[in-house]
Amino acid sequence: MKLITDRILLAHGSGGRLTHELISKLFRSRFSNPMLNTLDDSAVFPMKAAGSLAFTTDSFVVNPLFFPGGDIGKLSVFGTVNDLAMKGARPLCLSVAAIIEEGLETKILEQIADSISKAAKKAGVPVVTGDTKVVERGKADKLFLTTSGIGIVKPGVNVSGSRARPGDAVLINGTIADHGVAVLAARNEFKLKTAVKSDCAPLNALVQRILSAVKEVHTFRDPTRGGLATTLNEIADSSNVGIIIEESRIPVKKEARSACALLGLDPLYVANEGKVAVFVPEKQSAKTLQVMKKDELGKSSARIGTVVKSPKGVWLKTTASGLRPLVMLEGEQMPRIC
Amino acid sequence: MKLITDRILLAHGSGGRLTHELISKLFRSRFSNPMLNTLDDSAVFPMKAAGSLAFTTDSFVVNPLFFPGGDIGKLSVFGTVNDLAMKGARPLCLSVAAIIEEGLETKILEQIADSISKAAKKAGVPVVTGDTKVVERGKADKLFLTTSGIGIVKPGVNVSGSRARPGDAVLINGTIADHGVAVLAARNEFKLKTAVKSDCAPLNALVQRILSAVKEVHTFRDPTRGGLATTLNEIADSSNVGIIIEESRIPVKKEARSACALLGLDPLYVANEGKVAVFVPEKQSAKTLQVMKKDELGKSSARIGTVVKSPKGVWLKTTASGLRPLVMLEGEQMPRIC
Repeated sequence: MKLITDRILLAHGSGGRLTHELISKLFRSRFSNPMLNTLDDSAVFPMKAAGSLAFTTDSFVVNPLFFPGGDIGKLSVFGTVNDLAMKGARPLCLSVAAIIEEGLETKILEQIADSISKAAKKAGVPVVTGDTKVVERGKADKLFLTTSGIGIVKPGVNVSGSRARPGDAVLINGTIADHGVAVLAARNEFKLKTAVKSDCAPLNALVQRILSAVKEVHTFRDPTRGGLATTLNEIADSSNVGIIIEESRIPVKKEARSACALLGLDPLYVANEGKVAVFVPEKQSAKTLQVMKKDELGKSSARIGTVVKSPKGVWLKTTASGLRPLVMLEGEQMPRIC
Repeated sequence: MKLITDRILLAHGSGGRLTHELISKLFRSRFSNPMLNTLDDSAVFPMKAAGSLAFTTDSFVVNPLFFPGGDIGKLSVFGTVNDLAMKGARPLCLSVAAIIEEGLETKILEQIADSISKAAKKAGVPVVTGDTKVVERGKADKLFLTTSGIGIVKPGVNVSGSRARPGDAVLINGTIADHGVAVLAARNEFKLKTAVKSDCAPLNALVQRILSAVKEVHTFRDPTRGGLATTLNEIADSSNVGIIIEESRIPVKKEARSACALLGLDPLYVANEGKVAVFVPEKQSAKTLQVMKKDELGKSSARIGTVVKSPKGVWLKTTASGLRPLVMLEGEQMPRIC
């Protein structure tokens, strides 16, 4: 028997010799770092000081595994890094758990492990522990990943979806809908050709840049599944405020807009993976925008709206017809977008 | 549309309104605790002092979801608690991420959420954050869970699979093979009737009891997938020692032994979910065994072996024929046992 076969076998999930080989040859070699949990069941590492920890988890079931601008590995690392960043946390370490369908080509798993490793390096966060399970052919769809992350929140940082306040400016760091469009196009079923790539990126550096430069930040939130409209609704609900968004100010790439039109989608409900909605008091707005535009992930940053005391909920100010309500995503627009 | 439908829909994974309803009505209501991540992407909580953290993750794909003595929810909580305990860590908090197959009965998900909640209470650890994804019918098998956990390791505690030393006594807290036998029997495909229940249980209290009473503990390790034989091989490898196990001293329930005989399985390779192999210096052995026997999970504890400098590897001392090598599990004996 070859040490690692061309395809993943059920035995690679047995916990026995093949599991050990898969982990050491395919994963451990790529994730080498001083904190890596080498052989025990948990990674253990020192915390230098008391403080606050952030903890998050996300499963990734994106279909297809590879799409323009990213793949499930990159997506899972950045997605988890971003969930930490949205609380103002610096990522400390990640875990990755894989559920693999029997018969998956080993080469694909290697490519994704490479991608995880590269993304973790880019975000500056080590993968310190993991798990691998294999299920029978037809009982999963190639590969699902679940990443969890721990981050450190510095004293004084207090950002939350419940802290938006009337008078806040709402900013975003660039064009929306790119991720959703790229993944849908990659499925081929829509015969859609587009140059749009996923915006999949780690937002931790941008967030830290803002926190360092801006005195008072109320909310960071990444508009992933459900899109910007759903995210803004979550914030409006949690903070018990209204949010008025100006349609003409929302950055959308021309290609993404055409693709959405073809697919009958509203870009406001399409997933993003490298965008953050930032809420700051009006007087910090210009400064924040300036800081955001200097970051490589914020070149197309824009002020898109304002928080009001009433009406509650989210409202879109259109060029044509004044305000229309922008509700949370109803039903499912795009399954398995992340 | 009903607030929560009888079956899980793809739209429950959309990130939109139905996802919010599923999370708030089905999960959040059950996991209520002060640390719970209510609406943000990460849970944030204070760490009272500097110290060491343990971090672990595991995916659970057990088939069937319910089996005598447990279910996937209980298994995932205790499995993660135990991975923390094996490093001597007290569990601080857990995350739970669910990948659900479209069409799963909502009632089943509710039962499993109840079970997660009950298990978390029993182990004394809050579930503080989570995630829910839904994939199309036929793209997963009902439900997969991934739990991650953070624990705190007290200063001075240093247990590891690499710390077994020649002269150490090897102890176990009860009968082996119960979990694997119970799950296989629950699959029905083997027409196996047995009274054996899974040993699925949280080992954190037992571990803390040992750490409080015994001066020097070298290794804790739970023999899950791959069974006791595989676990001992991992320890022998990591510690570069030999381990001699006495066959006659290994506790195995009569019913489990007959079931294994019928299925052609060796109990030494069958998974456990509430057992821990404990390595302590010979002079601490009697004390440790006494402490273990006092714990509700250690009534059938036994000394089963000894660590030697050579021969390396794991050896079974049989009543009939002296020593025979006990290798790591080859191939797959039982897919989806956890």
